[in-house]
Amino acid sequence: PHPSEPHPALARATMTWVIASDGDVMEGVSAEAAAIAGRLELGKLIVYWDDNDITIDGRASLSSREDVCARFAAAGWHIERVDDGNDVDAIVRASEAAKKDPRPSFIRVKTIIGYPSPGKQDTSDAHGAPLGKDEITATKKVMGWPDVAFHVPDEVPGLAAEVRAEGAARETAWKAAFAAYEAAHPELARALVAAMDGQLPANWDSTLPVFPTDAKGLATRKASEKTIQSLAKAIPQLVGGSADLAGSNLTTMEGEADFLPEAEGIPRNVNWGIREHGMAAAVNGMALHGGVVPFGATFLIFADYMRPSLRLASLMGVRTRYVFTHDSIGLGEDGPTHQPVEHLASLRAIPGFSVFRPGDANETRECWKQAILADGPAALVLTRQNLPTLDRSVHAPAENVRFGAYVLAEAEGGAPEVILVGTGSEVSVALEARALLASEGIRARVVSMPCWELFLAQSAEYRASVFPASVKARVVVEAGIRMGWERFIGEDGGYVTLERFGASAPAPTLFRELGITKERVVSEAKRLLGR
Amino acid sequence: PHPSEPHPALARATMTWVIASDGDVMEGVSAEAAAIAGRLELGKLIVYWDDNDITIDGRASLSSREDVCARFAAAGWHIERVDDGNDVDAIVRASEAAKKDPRPSFIRVKTIIGYPSPGKQDTSDAHGAPLGKDEITATKKVMGWPDVAFHVPDEVPGLAAEVRAEGAARETAWKAAFAAYEAAHPELARALVAAMDGQLPANWDSTLPVFPTDAKGLATRKASEKTIQSLAKAIPQLVGGSADLAGSNLTTMEGEADFLPEAEGIPRNVNWGIREHGMAAAVNGMALHGGVVPFGATFLIFADYMRPSLRLASLMGVRTRYVFTHDSIGLGEDGPTHQPVEHLASLRAIPGFSVFRPGDANETRECWKQAILADGPAALVLTRQNLPTLDRSVHAPAENVRFGAYVLAEAEGGAPEVILVGTGSEVSVALEARALLASEGIRARVVSMPCWELFLAQSAEYRASVFPASVKARVVVEAGIRMGWERFIGEDGGYVTLERFGASAPAPTLFRELGITKERVVSEAKRLLGR
Repeated sequence: PHPSEPHPALARATMTWVIASDGDVMEGVSAEAAAIAGRLELGKLIVYWDDNDITIDGRASLSSREDVCARFAAAGWHIERVDDGNDVDAIVRASEAAKKDPRPSFIRVKTIIGYPSPGKQDTSDAHGAPLGKDEITATKKVMGWPDVAFHVPDEVPGLAAEVRAEGAARETAWKAAFAAYEAAHPELARALVAAMDGQLPANWDSTLPVFPTDAKGLATRKASEKTIQSLAKAIPQLVGGSADLAGSNLTTMEGEADFLPEAEGIPRNVNWGIREHGMAAAVNGMALHGGVVPFGATFLIFADYMRPSLRLASLMGVRTRYVFTHDSIGLGEDGPTHQPVEHLASLRAIPGFSVFRPGDANETRECWKQAILADGPAALVLTRQNLPTLDRSVHAPAENVRFGAYVLAEAEGGAPEVILVGTGSEVSVALEARALLASEGIRARVVSMPCWELFLAQSAEYRASVFPASVKARVVVEAGIRMGWERFIGEDGGYVTLERFGASAPAPTLFRELGITKERVVSEAKRLLGR
Repeated sequence: PHPSEPHPALARATMTWVIASDGDVMEGVSAEAAAIAGRLELGKLIVYWDDNDITIDGRASLSSREDVCARFAAAGWHIERVDDGNDVDAIVRASEAAKKDPRPSFIRVKTIIGYPSPGKQDTSDAHGAPLGKDEITATKKVMGWPDVAFHVPDEVPGLAAEVRAEGAARETAWKAAFAAYEAAHPELARALVAAMDGQLPANWDSTLPVFPTDAKGLATRKASEKTIQSLAKAIPQLVGGSADLAGSNLTTMEGEADFLPEAEGIPRNVNWGIREHGMAAAVNGMALHGGVVPFGATFLIFADYMRPSLRLASLMGVRTRYVFTHDSIGLGEDGPTHQPVEHLASLRAIPGFSVFRPGDANETRECWKQAILADGPAALVLTRQNLPTLDRSVHAPAENVRFGAYVLAEAEGGAPEVILVGTGSEVSVALEARALLASEGIRARVVSMPCWELFLAQSAEYRASVFPASVKARVVVEAGIRMGWERFIGEDGGYVTLERFGASAPAPTLFRELGITKERVVSEAKRLLGR
């Protein structure tokens, strides 16, 4: 059930207040975020710009003469100006005007950095370092304060008590309002509390799609699309969308409205625009706010734009989700600017960030499930091109994705002589190589390894059961750089990987010309076995 | 010699013309670039905005209602508007006005995507896919063209000949102007041609600083600062600066002016502002333009913001240089948001991108030298904190940096039993561990490995001389993630690395608490040797 009639008291709880520096408004992500907020008329967002005209290297005018208010106005924001940052009444007046305006508000507050330090105010010395003992003494003198540490002026305790009393009264009123809402809408109230608490609805994963065996198969982005439809129905708080690639990422929730101010009901499909970094930052903010399960989507290559926010998601441990499609040279003609050969490695490098690269449709479902369950940020890395849907009556179940890596196809006729490891679109290449090797009497095990992070979290026993120390001949096939695979394959293993940028051609041509083929897997295996 | 009196014909040659899409102006980097160009009054920059109101997912208004012209005006740009993109005369008029204006110019050209295709114009169908055979036929009908492939209207050859003739005349005039300039200023003309050709002045590296042995030592960012002063004198086309961290990156060229329109003479110190992505994009553009050796600087952590442009630098093979300081947990109190534990790995992951992490002051000089010589992009990764300047009469010469990795200190008293590998601030940790091991009768070799990319380009023989197959006991010490080190150390090697984000504390506390210590190197070495 959607909490479609929230009590006004609840709605008011979602105000977002930002204090932004000169540097914050210089970073490009601020322009992306401003444009998103302006288009979506996020009237509950109020930004105070601490306009002190000082950056670390000196006056802000060294590098900027931008009319920042005009820039935010251009993005559709309501603008307020406070000429003296010490004029608290003026700030309150501007804030009240901001709260009334239906647009997001940008309040330019002119301040003096380090005020009223006589020696350091209005200089970059007051930016990155403490004032120092002498300057603190001089500043306290200007303020008419005694030169003692941790001085609390006499009026402060009384003022603080007032704030406490007002806060307590507001909390009481809010609780009463919520109790009334709870009485009127018990089910909605329960769902809201659960969602704010980060809980998922019961049995959310009971209707996920099961894909039949199919040699022609389908793209994992397509399997993800079907999975998303199931998730969207089961998890009403799933909200997200694509950075202008919805038709390619296949992330649109069917029957749900575009997340736009003019939408009716509860819209859920966000159009982030061509603003990957802003998208990732907003997804972080939504996850921190709580109550929603937010996601963003784009091509894997553009994860580079999002990287600062992906890292912060991991550092903060927020449960953000990402759909990254067009995951290798397999996207074909767009060429090397769009072919993410090093992005699996660079995302795996972020501590606590889970990267899932499923090898077929059913692994895609299971990867989505693990991604939803993950305690921190998680990305689905998906193909543009079709992959065979594997016969799970022959191979191990896709549910084994939960171990990060698993024996998909055991060697036949005895212990494995060689282990072939693949991810994503290269899992089926490994399976084909296994068949070729079998025809030459060579026993190969195939390991599908959709998620390093999950695998490394397994017990040493489990890991050794997938990669027994006794089988040193190991070949990895992945359409990306080899970096990091040495951990599993060994320095002297076989690497059917790419140590270069891609090229522009149809996908099958690229895989052939760049050597991501079953034949190369076979020849590497035989080289390692001395055959 | 500075080419301080370029002929007007040369100056005119540096116009930069940009055709930008709706998506281009949505990306945050466009706001950063606009602000830089506006502040610097880059009057030779003219941007045509192809304003067709269509993005891949539909109308641009789905995600944007920004007044883009107002945004560029806010950044200090001259604005022109062309209401009909098919009105060539209006475009010419706007372009002429743009050329005359001293500011950068933004020309909004209203267009219809796919014009005049009757079925697909003004829709996103015309964005990402070909029109298709039937629609091409229908479009040609609208245009009154015959339905043949590669139709060239009768007037085109004549018009093309006119353009050729005009171009030839302009080239002849330009050559004459340059010949006159060459006659008047032979030395300057020669220097200019050489610089445009990517050549460095003769003996540019003959005056680089040599640092005396010093146990207290200095930060590699400080050694870099001294090296930059020498490079600045020897290479007049060295131009660059920091993204508002000049005082921390130590990249300012002494005695040179800030790169500002109000500067006199030839300014060289660029203040990029807090715009890392815009900086990296501009550095790429400067390298592609030629004539300058451009660089950018920031903290290593913020390389994440620059990543899309770093990748493009590598893909294009341009000779861009980056100074990344504050390179590990060694920066201390700023904490994990500022501590780049995974950034060495993620930069090493970019094909063709050279990462240099020098271990002392003299390695810093040599790394700068190799970075200047590198055929593609190259980054110097430098410490905030002091490192001992090693005694090169005892250890191998710092010039060996050119091999990427080298035996810095050989085991004493026989063949090495264990190899200790370090980079940057951890090289001296490895040396201290070697001394401790020696006191216990264990023979350890120390390898300094400032640049993986250079090492991997060496012969197999050289690589085996540094890491002999016979010495399997290897320990790496690096204050970052282990990912990729398995290639050199082996799956079962010793990893004195960090598999987590950092923390906020003084640097010595962090190294101790997070275990990047000589004691741990020693215990890992002994564990591998079974001692």
